[in-house]
Amino acid sequence: LLILDQTLLPHEVREIALATTGEVAEAIRSLRIRGAPAIGIAAAYGLVVAAGAVGRGASPAERLAAVRDAHDLLLATRPTAVNLRHALRRTLAAAAPGPDLAALLLAEARALHEEDRLSCERMAHLALRHVRDGGTYLTHCNAGALATGGIGTALGVFHLAAGRGFRLRVYADETRPLLQGARLTAWELAQSGVAVTLLCDSAAASVLAAGRVEAVFVGADRIAANGDVANKVGTWPLSLAAREAKVPFFVVAPWSTFDLSLPSGRDIPIEERSPGEVLSFAGRRTAAPGADAANPAFDVTPAALVTAIVTERGIIAPVTPATVAALASG
Amino acid sequence: LLILDQTLLPHEVREIALATTGEVAEAIRSLRIRGAPAIGIAAAYGLVVAAGAVGRGASPAERLAAVRDAHDLLLATRPTAVNLRHALRRTLAAAAPGPDLAALLLAEARALHEEDRLSCERMAHLALRHVRDGGTYLTHCNAGALATGGIGTALGVFHLAAGRGFRLRVYADETRPLLQGARLTAWELAQSGVAVTLLCDSAAASVLAAGRVEAVFVGADRIAANGDVANKVGTWPLSLAAREAKVPFFVVAPWSTFDLSLPSGRDIPIEERSPGEVLSFAGRRTAAPGADAANPAFDVTPAALVTAIVTERGIIAPVTPATVAALASG
Repeated sequence: LLILDQTLLPHEVREIALATTGEVAEAIRSLRIRGAPAIGIAAAYGLVVAAGAVGRGASPAERLAAVRDAHDLLLATRPTAVNLRHALRRTLAAAAPGPDLAALLLAEARALHEEDRLSCERMAHLALRHVRDGGTYLTHCNAGALATGGIGTALGVFHLAAGRGFRLRVYADETRPLLQGARLTAWELAQSGVAVTLLCDSAAASVLAAGRVEAVFVGADRIAANGDVANKVGTWPLSLAAREAKVPFFVVAPWSTFDLSLPSGRDIPIEERSPGEVLSFAGRRTAAPGADAANPAFDVTPAALVTAIVTERGIIAPVTPATVAALASG
Repeated sequence: LLILDQTLLPHEVREIALATTGEVAEAIRSLRIRGAPAIGIAAAYGLVVAAGAVGRGASPAERLAAVRDAHDLLLATRPTAVNLRHALRRTLAAAAPGPDLAALLLAEARALHEEDRLSCERMAHLALRHVRDGGTYLTHCNAGALATGGIGTALGVFHLAAGRGFRLRVYADETRPLLQGARLTAWELAQSGVAVTLLCDSAAASVLAAGRVEAVFVGADRIAANGDVANKVGTWPLSLAAREAKVPFFVVAPWSTFDLSLPSGRDIPIEERSPGEVLSFAGRRTAAPGADAANPAFDVTPAALVTAIVTERGIIAPVTPATVAALASG
């Protein structure tokens, strides 16, 4: 399994090979590969790796048990993005003991990957009605090609529009602590010819208030049955500022991001990452001695603050338990 | 004029000597000395430096002209904090041509410095009713001893309470791009025995929503006649989150921060600083090539989102044009 190591971007574009399930798990935990759809796809391929890594003398049952262990290991890597669970469950369900185990898993992982690619295309086409030539937009974190198996969720519409010749400017929140906006979104959008202006996360509200942005587009890591959206920390205060500034706030996310088993966003588990991500920068401590840090990686934006959710199945607007349920059954 | 170079904190505690008005202006522009009250005091001493730096053969009129030039140079260093203008005007008003010029300026600068120290004490005592032993609070940027001539504005109450034996925890926003929270607030509060937990600026909203904070305390750089507050960028979205979370939001600022000539916060000039502060870290570019950055240093929090403004003259609550006017005339 070859992945682009996103922790090295934009300074270095390096692919790394992951030969064991443990290496896949480490790559997901350390954000070498990240983005809700992308970690689902990587985990699915991780099951293929697990099936292949078992010794030749293993019985079919032992081989399947190793895949089940890999499922559990990979599922535990990151708690918030539900795409991970969907992808692992679905790929494991395709498994059957026997000589074709790895081939079955690979076919399912590839199908999942291809479906995600098509979902991105479909979402971008649906979102295109909210983007115009010459327009200026704002995004948070990285919900692009690097985060998915295709052209991205929130960024997919910008790639699509730029490909059609639209001149766009996108304000990108730098996205502390790991600077996915400054490192990844800016890198990715520049390649499509989109003009990118970075902002400190706390400056996004000012830019919205100044009327310089026509709409906000963000991705999602998990969406509850009532339409509450968990996404990268900072999304909720951004949505509050967008409401104050009367700027539309769009969430773009594939159907695999929905978790209808959870009635509301309050039930979504929020990953707490290492304080070191906040206290240090590039290996050097930046914070004063003695201080510790809290580092929640996600927050929850209430459905009422979301103008619309764009999925590959269609657009949910307004976002309510009823409109989510209608798309689920439709 | 000796100042502590705040750009080197917390790694190095170094005083630097400023021998010319140009050096004072550079120190203010580059944030070696920062914080609305502190830059006012530094600029006042800068006029003393100007009076002393004129050649011995200069006439009294030439000496006064040099002080007036220094006033103009220092006034232009930073546009948002109005304390700078107040301090420069007041100190210049004390000037009279003659052999006592430098002594007159020094006396006025010292008086201003001492008044600021006393204002900090008074504000901290007034704010103490909103702080309890065992309490947990949140602040943004650095509005402490480093930013004033005394124990600070927003942080003064924590220093005072800690001195009385209160056990406090303060969540401090790291405050991008220059990390005044991580570098300065954490350093300063740790010295008073306050437990400090740093947050990425965009995580503050989550911490408020989780009910982990009893009140927010921030400083101010300029307050309009209607009570709108300009403060470090990120204060406005923080106030939005505080309102959603029903957490009281206190501004602590001396009367010299008020600019009654401006009807509302819309009229406050907002300093736009160098994009390099956002694009690079410690001299190394962190952002992807091709991206530029916008870097507004302040934003405006509407009066309606401020629970109370604590000044040395008394507490303004609710914050309205009438309550501000009452304190102005009272």
